[in-house]
Amino acid sequence: MGTNKQSFSAPRGMRDFYPEDMPLRNAVFAAWHTAAGQHGFQQYDACVVETLDLLKKKSGDEIIGQIYDFTDKSDRELALRPEMTPSLARMVAARQNALRFPLKWYSIVQCFRYERMSKGRKREHFQLNLDIIGENSVLAEVEVISAATRALESLGLGPDDFCVHVSSRALLTDLLLKLDIPADHHPATFLALDKLGKISKEATSELLLTSGLDRSHVESVLSLLAIKSLDEANNILGAPTPASMRLSDFFQFMESYGLSDRVAFDISIVRGLAYYTGIVFEAFDRSKELRAIFGGGRYDNLLGDIGGNPAGGVGLGFGDVVLAELLTNKNSSIGVPNTADTGVGYMSEEQKPAAISLSLSLRQENILVDLALHPEKAKTFFSRADRSGFQQAIFIGPDDVASGTVRVKNLKTGEQQQMDLA
Amino acid sequence: MGTNKQSFSAPRGMRDFYPEDMPLRNAVFAAWHTAAGQHGFQQYDACVVETLDLLKKKSGDEIIGQIYDFTDKSDRELALRPEMTPSLARMVAARQNALRFPLKWYSIVQCFRYERMSKGRKREHFQLNLDIIGENSVLAEVEVISAATRALESLGLGPDDFCVHVSSRALLTDLLLKLDIPADHHPATFLALDKLGKISKEATSELLLTSGLDRSHVESVLSLLAIKSLDEANNILGAPTPASMRLSDFFQFMESYGLSDRVAFDISIVRGLAYYTGIVFEAFDRSKELRAIFGGGRYDNLLGDIGGNPAGGVGLGFGDVVLAELLTNKNSSIGVPNTADTGVGYMSEEQKPAAISLSLSLRQENILVDLALHPEKAKTFFSRADRSGFQQAIFIGPDDVASGTVRVKNLKTGEQQQMDLA
Repeated sequence: MGTNKQSFSAPRGMRDFYPEDMPLRNAVFAAWHTAAGQHGFQQYDACVVETLDLLKKKSGDEIIGQIYDFTDKSDRELALRPEMTPSLARMVAARQNALRFPLKWYSIVQCFRYERMSKGRKREHFQLNLDIIGENSVLAEVEVISAATRALESLGLGPDDFCVHVSSRALLTDLLLKLDIPADHHPATFLALDKLGKISKEATSELLLTSGLDRSHVESVLSLLAIKSLDEANNILGAPTPASMRLSDFFQFMESYGLSDRVAFDISIVRGLAYYTGIVFEAFDRSKELRAIFGGGRYDNLLGDIGGNPAGGVGLGFGDVVLAELLTNKNSSIGVPNTADTGVGYMSEEQKPAAISLSLSLRQENILVDLALHPEKAKTFFSRADRSGFQQAIFIGPDDVASGTVRVKNLKTGEQQQMDLA
Repeated sequence: MGTNKQSFSAPRGMRDFYPEDMPLRNAVFAAWHTAAGQHGFQQYDACVVETLDLLKKKSGDEIIGQIYDFTDKSDRELALRPEMTPSLARMVAARQNALRFPLKWYSIVQCFRYERMSKGRKREHFQLNLDIIGENSVLAEVEVISAATRALESLGLGPDDFCVHVSSRALLTDLLLKLDIPADHHPATFLALDKLGKISKEATSELLLTSGLDRSHVESVLSLLAIKSLDEANNILGAPTPASMRLSDFFQFMESYGLSDRVAFDISIVRGLAYYTGIVFEAFDRSKELRAIFGGGRYDNLLGDIGGNPAGGVGLGFGDVVLAELLTNKNSSIGVPNTADTGVGYMSEEQKPAAISLSLSLRQENILVDLALHPEKAKTFFSRADRSGFQQAIFIGPDDVASGTVRVKNLKTGEQQQMDLA
């Protein structure tokens, strides 16, 4: 036929999920749903296709360059969403007068980014989004992080496996002002600092110089990265600022939540997205080999930026790709294969009606039944049943129909039991 | 601010799901998952973005004109899938030597079609796909329909609500040959007949004439639509053909499944997609006011068409939009609101630690807890709790912390119970 193997592949960076890939994904989604629900979040969703205009208004420059955009047959400019926050902001703004605040919403959605392929990156991933909008209390930050750590815990990942690194853009702003770096240089400084770890210190310096900082300011900025605690930050500031006091409250709440062993102050956390204004955080595996497990922070202008009434909030995004790597590295056996409980087979067409009626009764009792679609030899049926991972197998021959009973074989223990065919 | 309302809308034809829209959708998805699992289907998935090339190979002409296609930043030709079957064929072909047949797979996926907006149509929808590949027995057709009717049943929709209309392209082929209509006119004839019901009989005649049939043949084709039973078809054919015997077997099996009251022979069912070759079916509401609830049929060349080894099978697609209309028309109260079980509030910052520790204990017991993020007056808290749909509400004041007990108010009955704060 002259076809090439190529045509059987998914587009580059996009994933297929074969049946053996689903149990892990389903276990992750279930952990996300449960943790979000336990924390009182309500589920919402929006279509993966968004208007390009909205994404341009809301997303940072870095993301705009990575958007899958296209025009539809009416020349509408559309795009596959790179993140959920713009859609969330749009939906909330559309009903801002009718909704009750603070609002706690979550979604599990697919997002797309066109970027170079590397370990832990695909061009699409699934993502849990937790957002609390219209709430100033730092308990909002605490609750989204608590929900995310609860999801990790239910997947078997505890304080030995990951740590949430926490800082604050407001604190960093205080520190930059203390260093006499004017406010209009701050956005570029944030972006450059966010790149550290991905690019070298030299490259970061270069970025800061290009953004207009002079060499001595660049050195002061990089010196901030030596700050190891909130106390050290307060020492530089002279006295605690509202931003540093808020961070201190945050860590105290985390302690009352019993989560102190899962958080650490880390001045290098800045986040790439433009819209964060307060506390920011990223969770990493303890050996820091992988990309961030989840991340988020406080934004003050979520709705204002797209034309709604200004309302602040806290958001958290938690992807499935790094999490799956973490679980794999840990040899986790999360996820139960989604095979049928019971296989039903039969020797010839004569026993088919009995096999059908037995299958219907079992299904009526909510048992997952794989009914053979054609007759087989007993040997063929049982070897197929063994490979399929069924819990039990029932094979109906002529004698069984005559006697009105059939043997149920437990495929795990090999035990056999007689069962009434009716 | 001069922003227009426009920017708060989803793209045309795309849906937002607010928290109040999720319970129905989740109930439908759960019914699909359960019915598929009970019938021994295994879940799979593929990315909504496919290569345009694959879709061109597999989909009929009608669909190609409705595809959302685009090029990525490397000039790859991609598209949002209009249906799942091409992706399924691709995935199976890629592992054809390793997979065991017959295979029974299902997926719940989003599909996109750019078409004129009308009742029951969006430009995206979610869809259950059931496929059995590598099986010739008509029991394959029976099992996919049984799974779909089981899903409807669990949503409260029975024989009074819908009927599966069934015919066969192979039978229609026999009839057309009997009328001396050459085989190369059959594909165009199928497409024209599929349009009946959407367009007038006159317009259908016109289509048939344009496709090259002469006027007397057009009249014979349209006369076939008067056939009301399999017996009448057999009378025209002179004797039962393999195709009519297969249909007869199908109806017999449906009877042994107890589903006779949910199926009917209907010669007008043809299906629009090019790849069907045998039995085809579409389920409609009894008053036939809505579009098809689900549809599908047998295809013989699913894998061969895209370059794999030929293998036949049966597929069924079941969308969420018409189903939701049907449930709404029936005033169905399917779906439980996804609100928290318990709201926890407190009068001042002093009671916050007690509220936190109580919430953590409740969550540990898998209770869904909405913890207030800031202090409120009792009246504000209880009025908010009433509107939120919580089952119960707990408000902590200074006296409660002092006494170590707190009142739990059941919001449905108004009953109050004392509870230990520790």
